[in-house]
Amino acid sequence: MTAHDIPEPARLHTDAVVVDGLQINNWSREVFEELRTGGVSGVNATAAVWEGTDQTLRTVAEWYQMAQRHNDLMLLAETADDIRKAKDEGRVAVMLGFQNTSPFGDDYRLVEVFSRLGVRIAQLTYNIQNAVGGSCYEPEDSGLTRFGRNIVAEMNRVGMLIDLSHVGNRTSLDAVEASVAPVAITHSNPTWFVDNPRNKPAEVLRAVAEGGGVVGCCLYPLVLGGAGTGLDEFCAMVRRLVDEIGPEHVALGSDCTRNWDDGYVEWLRSGHWRPRGEVPATWPEWPHWFRGPEDFPRVTDGLVAAGLDEHTVRGVLGENWLGLFDDVFLGGRAA
Amino acid sequence: MTAHDIPEPARLHTDAVVVDGLQINNWSREVFEELRTGGVSGVNATAAVWEGTDQTLRTVAEWYQMAQRHNDLMLLAETADDIRKAKDEGRVAVMLGFQNTSPFGDDYRLVEVFSRLGVRIAQLTYNIQNAVGGSCYEPEDSGLTRFGRNIVAEMNRVGMLIDLSHVGNRTSLDAVEASVAPVAITHSNPTWFVDNPRNKPAEVLRAVAEGGGVVGCCLYPLVLGGAGTGLDEFCAMVRRLVDEIGPEHVALGSDCTRNWDDGYVEWLRSGHWRPRGEVPATWPEWPHWFRGPEDFPRVTDGLVAAGLDEHTVRGVLGENWLGLFDDVFLGGRAA
Repeated sequence: MTAHDIPEPARLHTDAVVVDGLQINNWSREVFEELRTGGVSGVNATAAVWEGTDQTLRTVAEWYQMAQRHNDLMLLAETADDIRKAKDEGRVAVMLGFQNTSPFGDDYRLVEVFSRLGVRIAQLTYNIQNAVGGSCYEPEDSGLTRFGRNIVAEMNRVGMLIDLSHVGNRTSLDAVEASVAPVAITHSNPTWFVDNPRNKPAEVLRAVAEGGGVVGCCLYPLVLGGAGTGLDEFCAMVRRLVDEIGPEHVALGSDCTRNWDDGYVEWLRSGHWRPRGEVPATWPEWPHWFRGPEDFPRVTDGLVAAGLDEHTVRGVLGENWLGLFDDVFLGGRAA
Repeated sequence: MTAHDIPEPARLHTDAVVVDGLQINNWSREVFEELRTGGVSGVNATAAVWEGTDQTLRTVAEWYQMAQRHNDLMLLAETADDIRKAKDEGRVAVMLGFQNTSPFGDDYRLVEVFSRLGVRIAQLTYNIQNAVGGSCYEPEDSGLTRFGRNIVAEMNRVGMLIDLSHVGNRTSLDAVEASVAPVAITHSNPTWFVDNPRNKPAEVLRAVAEGGGVVGCCLYPLVLGGAGTGLDEFCAMVRRLVDEIGPEHVALGSDCTRNWDDGYVEWLRSGHWRPRGEVPATWPEWPHWFRGPEDFPRVTDGLVAAGLDEHTVRGVLGENWLGLFDDVFLGGRAA
């Protein structure tokens, strides 16, 4: 490798289409500006965690209002091309995603309803067993249920991306097998990096990659090993994962949580499935090198410093998500 | 006028694009076949009368299922061109419409939500005063309310057609004035034909036409003067209305109610706003010359016999609805 081959990180970051596999911010104009400052052109924005059908409908409706109010700064994306367009225009493309299948209730028909409303990604379970399958925190993972198989088939039919980040390993393997389309882990790391229920054993990572899917390496302190983990350690993990499952299957999913108070992290952890206050929660400290979306250029620095070539860095930063979205989405309408 | 100018009704009916301004059937494959037999290419199908947000979402979801199951026979239409396409293909284009604003609840943002789901037409009120305005049966019509003005503005913005059929006269005149887009009366007749609260005084008919809107003359026995009214009387009414408000402003809205039992007509009349059984209801008898969608060719016969020229007959049968839809709809997405 000659000096000529070593990408200049700042130029590379500016040129690349940067896509974040998941953020769950308290969204506002300021947060969109943070994304733009960080050079992020596309993001999977969480529109439901525990919410049911009606409440999620209101959240989606509010996104339409935001898209009107901040039209100069962002747009709602339904395709990978919408993200490419946002990059060209210097705007941020927000793709609506669920971290749960709770908005579908027990009605598989609502997959198409929310698809038509612009929702492109849904995680099969959040932090507990649900009607679709087992979560990563569940001592007994049911596997993908009968209803879960219908949800997977319907998501395949309408072109909605299946996300396994918080999903239990048994259900995840079932889903990879059941799905005719590639699936994603939008925001998790390998358990060989940090052994945490939210991270994924090699078997699951490999299954996702072999099915044509993508794994978003995650910056959330809990799955990163805490705020003390170095950028070099994170990027060395990315590099090893690239070696293990292939450069086109690795991406980023920061799990940014901008502007929430501690009440929100307790909501995320406890929802209404257990009493508030039973397990108190506060937000963890983020590493000094990644405080929020504005710090994405540093990640590019780190990936280059870790010795990844330009093509791989571009893949990890965004092209791999775009390729997956091109594969999976059908433009928002059932075939 | 020479013999050459008198259209041949059967040929005319086959050639024309026939669009029905409103049907509220218990939909099934058999009913779609009745429409096809009757040469109907497009229909505004009622997807809500009293139902709220969640229940209406399920109705819309079920329409998506029907569109899959009966794809050979029908399609869901979002534009006038979808209806023209259905005509070319020998299928029936179903356009989803509401006979109430109840699915929006008290949240004007849900107009865009349902617009994105394919709903193209909404009547501002059904049979009682609601948050938007007064119904035609209300002794005191509030006029278009503050919320109602926001609903009208939002319907204008997203391209949803405002229907005034069951709406009170004061609210109707307010809505015509407030709307920047033409509006419709999808299924009512003039009060000079039958003096019934569901029919419209000349002032309202004129206001709708002057705003570029369309009035769908209605075959429902209650507003037709009963089953004894003759086809010639109905068609003479159409002709007089054409003379009064202009040929491009008159169309048809049969209000067909196929395959429901009497429980449904009581639901329509009483919803849950008064106790069931308080005002018992049974379906009225339809005139012998119009029992259902299969009898549309007879209406064409009658319009020709009433002396309307071919251009006017084509307008009344469907072109006037298509023109209005072209004017009002924006292809299902907010600008």
